[in-house]
Amino acid sequence: MILEHADIRIDPSKASEFEAAIERGARTVIGKAKGFQGYQVQRSIESPGRYLLLIRWDTLENHTVDFRGSAAFAEWRAIVGPFFAQPPVVEHLELVAQG
Amino acid sequence: MILEHADIRIDPSKASEFEAAIERGARTVIGKAKGFQGYQVQRSIESPGRYLLLIRWDTLENHTVDFRGSAAFAEWRAIVGPFFAQPPVVEHLELVAQG
Repeated sequence: MILEHADIRIDPSKASEFEAAIERGARTVIGKAKGFQGYQVQRSIESPGRYLLLIRWDTLENHTVDFRGSAAFAEWRAIVGPFFAQPPVVEHLELVAQG
Repeated sequence: MILEHADIRIDPSKASEFEAAIERGARTVIGKAKGFQGYQVQRSIESPGRYLLLIRWDTLENHTVDFRGSAAFAEWRAIVGPFFAQPPVVEHLELVAQG
């Protein structure tokens, strides 16, 4: 399992519309992608307009190759892209420990 | 529920020792703190030496007041602090959506 960690900045005055849009996009587009396991949208308390989109994928390639290379990626960007104040910063992580 | 998001940088050559130390500190110190719900340590694939420590707390104050004001905070820092290449960047987030 791989965690996609997307650090997103939007105009805080558009928070409600963005939150509705990203939930819809995650549910209707990303949720149907190959290797998708689950997602969370988290809103920063200290930094208005900062969100993290955390997506669990079976493999790194399910995100970087399969999803980004699919028509679904354009659908996803059409839903959430207009809100981005700057390009999201995306990293991938692997679990070391939990409890 | 509040998510503490600590962005940690270490010397990548000390990864194994750091991973053992942070797991021990999370289990033996943070795991006993008031309001603690659970934790994950995630290692970046693209940025060697970058880790995220994600801790779920009942409330924001369980971390910022109760834990940071307790003797346990010094114990925790004694275990993991020596590995930090720079001060961790900590933010708190709240769940907007998941699926």
